[in-house]
Amino acid sequence: MYRTHTCGELRMEQVGQQVTLAGWTQTVRKLHKAVTFVDLRDRYGITQLLFGESMSDRLEKEPLGREFVLQVTGIVTERTSKNSNIPTGDIEITVTDLKILNAAKTPPFTIQDDTDGGDELRMKYRYLDLRRNAVKQNLELRYRVNRSVRNFLDTRGFMDIETPFLIKSTPEGARDFVVPSRMNANEFYALPQSPQTFKQLLMVSGYDRYYQIVKCFRDEDLRADRQPEFTQIDCEMCFVEQEDILNNFEDMVKHVFKEIKGLEFNEPFPRMTFDDAMEFYGNDKPDIRFEMKLVNLTDTVKGQGFKVFDEAELVVAISVKGCGEYTRKQLDELTDWVKRPQIGMNGLIYVRYGADGSLKSSVDKFFDETKLKTWAEKANAQPGDLILVLAGREERTRKAMSELRLEMGERLGLRNKNEFKPLWVIDFPLFEYAEEENRWVARHHPFTSPKPEQIALMDDRSKYGQIKANAYDIVLNGTEIGGGSIRIFQRDLQEKMFAALGMTPEEANHKFGFLLGAFEYGAPPHGGIAFGFDRLCSLLGGSESIRDFIAFPKNNSGRDVMLDAPSSIDQAQLNELKIALVKEQQVQ
Amino acid sequence: MYRTHTCGELRMEQVGQQVTLAGWTQTVRKLHKAVTFVDLRDRYGITQLLFGESMSDRLEKEPLGREFVLQVTGIVTERTSKNSNIPTGDIEITVTDLKILNAAKTPPFTIQDDTDGGDELRMKYRYLDLRRNAVKQNLELRYRVNRSVRNFLDTRGFMDIETPFLIKSTPEGARDFVVPSRMNANEFYALPQSPQTFKQLLMVSGYDRYYQIVKCFRDEDLRADRQPEFTQIDCEMCFVEQEDILNNFEDMVKHVFKEIKGLEFNEPFPRMTFDDAMEFYGNDKPDIRFEMKLVNLTDTVKGQGFKVFDEAELVVAISVKGCGEYTRKQLDELTDWVKRPQIGMNGLIYVRYGADGSLKSSVDKFFDETKLKTWAEKANAQPGDLILVLAGREERTRKAMSELRLEMGERLGLRNKNEFKPLWVIDFPLFEYAEEENRWVARHHPFTSPKPEQIALMDDRSKYGQIKANAYDIVLNGTEIGGGSIRIFQRDLQEKMFAALGMTPEEANHKFGFLLGAFEYGAPPHGGIAFGFDRLCSLLGGSESIRDFIAFPKNNSGRDVMLDAPSSIDQAQLNELKIALVKEQQVQ
Repeated sequence: MYRTHTCGELRMEQVGQQVTLAGWTQTVRKLHKAVTFVDLRDRYGITQLLFGESMSDRLEKEPLGREFVLQVTGIVTERTSKNSNIPTGDIEITVTDLKILNAAKTPPFTIQDDTDGGDELRMKYRYLDLRRNAVKQNLELRYRVNRSVRNFLDTRGFMDIETPFLIKSTPEGARDFVVPSRMNANEFYALPQSPQTFKQLLMVSGYDRYYQIVKCFRDEDLRADRQPEFTQIDCEMCFVEQEDILNNFEDMVKHVFKEIKGLEFNEPFPRMTFDDAMEFYGNDKPDIRFEMKLVNLTDTVKGQGFKVFDEAELVVAISVKGCGEYTRKQLDELTDWVKRPQIGMNGLIYVRYGADGSLKSSVDKFFDETKLKTWAEKANAQPGDLILVLAGREERTRKAMSELRLEMGERLGLRNKNEFKPLWVIDFPLFEYAEEENRWVARHHPFTSPKPEQIALMDDRSKYGQIKANAYDIVLNGTEIGGGSIRIFQRDLQEKMFAALGMTPEEANHKFGFLLGAFEYGAPPHGGIAFGFDRLCSLLGGSESIRDFIAFPKNNSGRDVMLDAPSSIDQAQLNELKIALVKEQQVQ
Repeated sequence: MYRTHTCGELRMEQVGQQVTLAGWTQTVRKLHKAVTFVDLRDRYGITQLLFGESMSDRLEKEPLGREFVLQVTGIVTERTSKNSNIPTGDIEITVTDLKILNAAKTPPFTIQDDTDGGDELRMKYRYLDLRRNAVKQNLELRYRVNRSVRNFLDTRGFMDIETPFLIKSTPEGARDFVVPSRMNANEFYALPQSPQTFKQLLMVSGYDRYYQIVKCFRDEDLRADRQPEFTQIDCEMCFVEQEDILNNFEDMVKHVFKEIKGLEFNEPFPRMTFDDAMEFYGNDKPDIRFEMKLVNLTDTVKGQGFKVFDEAELVVAISVKGCGEYTRKQLDELTDWVKRPQIGMNGLIYVRYGADGSLKSSVDKFFDETKLKTWAEKANAQPGDLILVLAGREERTRKAMSELRLEMGERLGLRNKNEFKPLWVIDFPLFEYAEEENRWVARHHPFTSPKPEQIALMDDRSKYGQIKANAYDIVLNGTEIGGGSIRIFQRDLQEKMFAALGMTPEEANHKFGFLLGAFEYGAPPHGGIAFGFDRLCSLLGGSESIRDFIAFPKNNSGRDVMLDAPSSIDQAQLNELKIALVKEQQVQ
């Protein structure tokens, strides 16, 4: 037995007992030769050790450094100066015996909440970074969320069923990671982007309610905070309609918030159609912690001689509360902000609505106060507010205004990370047009069912844009945390869907023959949802970065800098797999 | 809402209520035009439907077939002839409304416990095979075991922490599956054979108690009932000795058996050294449901003129209770059995110990009754028993006798699959000599610590075979269900271990530099264990085959015959990954 207690366990009740602890030295404070204090740390807490006169020779001979692993025996003693900040702060251990289980080199950065280590350094020594309290709390939170989700789903009759990782490559959307097969030369497995088809098959098999907290893989160019491997809470139910799924998983989210944050949502989550989300928030994952809705001014402002508006597809405004006194400098700065390449607008039009009721705009030349008054009314602006207007190509302008709205919300402190405002976005379009590929693609995925009353529109390509799907996202504070759909469960409709996406029947059959086959043997209506587990944890933990909630994350180039992976492999391995490397210059 | 109740839910209490059910037609029995009975099935059970006079036209027009998906509304009615075999057997539904949600083609095999489908056919239509009650019960059992394990480990303070799947290839032992990286051209990730190094790093990071139920991957030639991807209950603890781990996980196994099988083990699990297991059972995973221990007769029988014995490295016997009257035909058949290539012996020597005390052997020419009496005493045989003797090269002979013992146990009905006899096998050798590779390899893995008192032997290559490890297996009914070790946690000892395995310091650093580094920054003593989850489930379920406990297993060639994976991928994918296929004839 290495210890009788952990470093978070001892209290006044144990005073007088002999105990043995093991852990890491957090700090060493030598007061003078006869008194050295050491904070001993483990997962459970910190306990103060007192090395007195009798141990001083020993410490002289073998000095203790930071992060040394110690085993100490001693007597629990009441402290003279107590520390009410930690649960063990009333006591200390008067050490009678010390064993250094392992020494430690000086860590390359301090193991503190405010560490002095940079990102790359901490990634390289991830095993040291994981010792920091902040990181430990994140992983503990992740574990608690995992348990909370499982407990909820278990209670609701969901079965955890493992689906395979070595599957078939069926790229449609994101790229697959592939795995060469040695036993089946020149053939490849793929790693799943999600267990989508498997969970559907489990419904066809009658498992009724399925879940899994499972790793998924996408070989995409990594943007900040995307990981090539990520974790999904993956769920599917049969004999359900959209309403059943929304209700069930709204309950799940409420359950998790209550358990993890002590937060109760007494009202049902709001539901917003995709069209409304786009119109009023400019994107499909609205942050509804604050209003500042988008107002379409296109019809109001067109044809009045201002070329920027007249040539615009969309003129859109927001009214920013209490910013009517913004200075010219502040407004110039906002203008620069919208002109940045990430936003890509040519300019920003503003109307300052003075506290005195006056209206001053950057387009006074074209619009008099009466006209500006109409804008203000449309935008629901009050004296003292600032109206911001963007104009241009519809999609870009809406997106830019959505960003500007978030930026203004941020500046006004309206995006409090301790406030949680979830909502459902529903009635997504079934298709979206991929300009680069010149074809219609599935907005959610090819297994999503159209609204039943709109199935007929699938016979007319020109109507694709109008078809809505039984698809839904759950959005929290401007971030999508989950999404799903009611699935197609009829072979003929699934075939029509594949055809609409440009697959020939042969392709469809090659890729998804097993699913089409399954639909012929008694497939029930079914639907499901998947939550981004990393993201959910980061939101619950009040962080922007999912990396902080992953034990061993990869960097932005998909590298594990601690392992130095990916890396080259032996020629012998390549030979066995019957593959060869193609060098850069050979690919033209 | 597709249903008000499931098919396993209705009882006498609901008689008179109108209900809606949804499910699959298990059977259709038309008594006459006015009465058709349908068994409707879902995950939860079977409910009998009665289609009376009023529905007969409807059924005439749209006949119901097996595996059709139905939604029916009707009144719960007391049955005239009750079926006490099923929980819903007291009632039936008098159907008033029927909706066929999906029709079904006739399944290629019957969805019954005793199906008429062969292995390959059931693998191809796995989604139909999964509907069979036997398979469903297996997956439900797996889910319950999963929960039971998690609950136990949660209670004991273990944290579920996810480790990465895209890691570094460090082949040592089994082959890695590799994953070409597109973003890091010509480099590869590997899929983990186990999260071994990560869980050790988590201990270095102070997480104290870790677990994960996690997929692992091994690209090995598949023997029967091995899967390229398999699931492990992976655990690690720090500040522990072997005793702590054995106790903790013995508790876990007991907990699972109690929850799943209602079985309590009141005694501690027996512990047996590796050496004893080899001596008395001929292998390191003894089936202790029956005795029939191996008895070494080498010294007793040598030098008495019988060439077979005189030339043998090992002469070993078992005494088979109550088989002293085996006929010549039975003994010939046993002799053929040991001569099969899988066993590979040249012959079998027997002694029949008659009920009258007489001793008759197949080597009467060389050994008289007095001598045979000595054998019988050594082998602890009683009148009425049969003594079987094998002789030859030590390793093969011991292995053959181990097999013969199991075979005799099987024939005598001593291997009851409802009896569970777990034990710990401890004190494994640290190394074993790999003849083909002409080098010492780690018996468990290179991170296993030698017994502390034997560390000095690592300086002498000739002593490698004598070094025992702090390594242990848990064995159940002749099958290893888990194994682990106390790990090395000092850099110098780990380096010595890598060197002993033939790695140069450069290789060791290239493959495991991160771990060696971690050991320098305060690594605590730690150890762990991993259970084969698929195997544990199959034993709990009383089956030989792990495939029956995996939702979507692969066949013996590592193929998923349902998906038809692995499969070829597009040239475009290969180009992006900068790899090329090497055709068979190109590799010489």
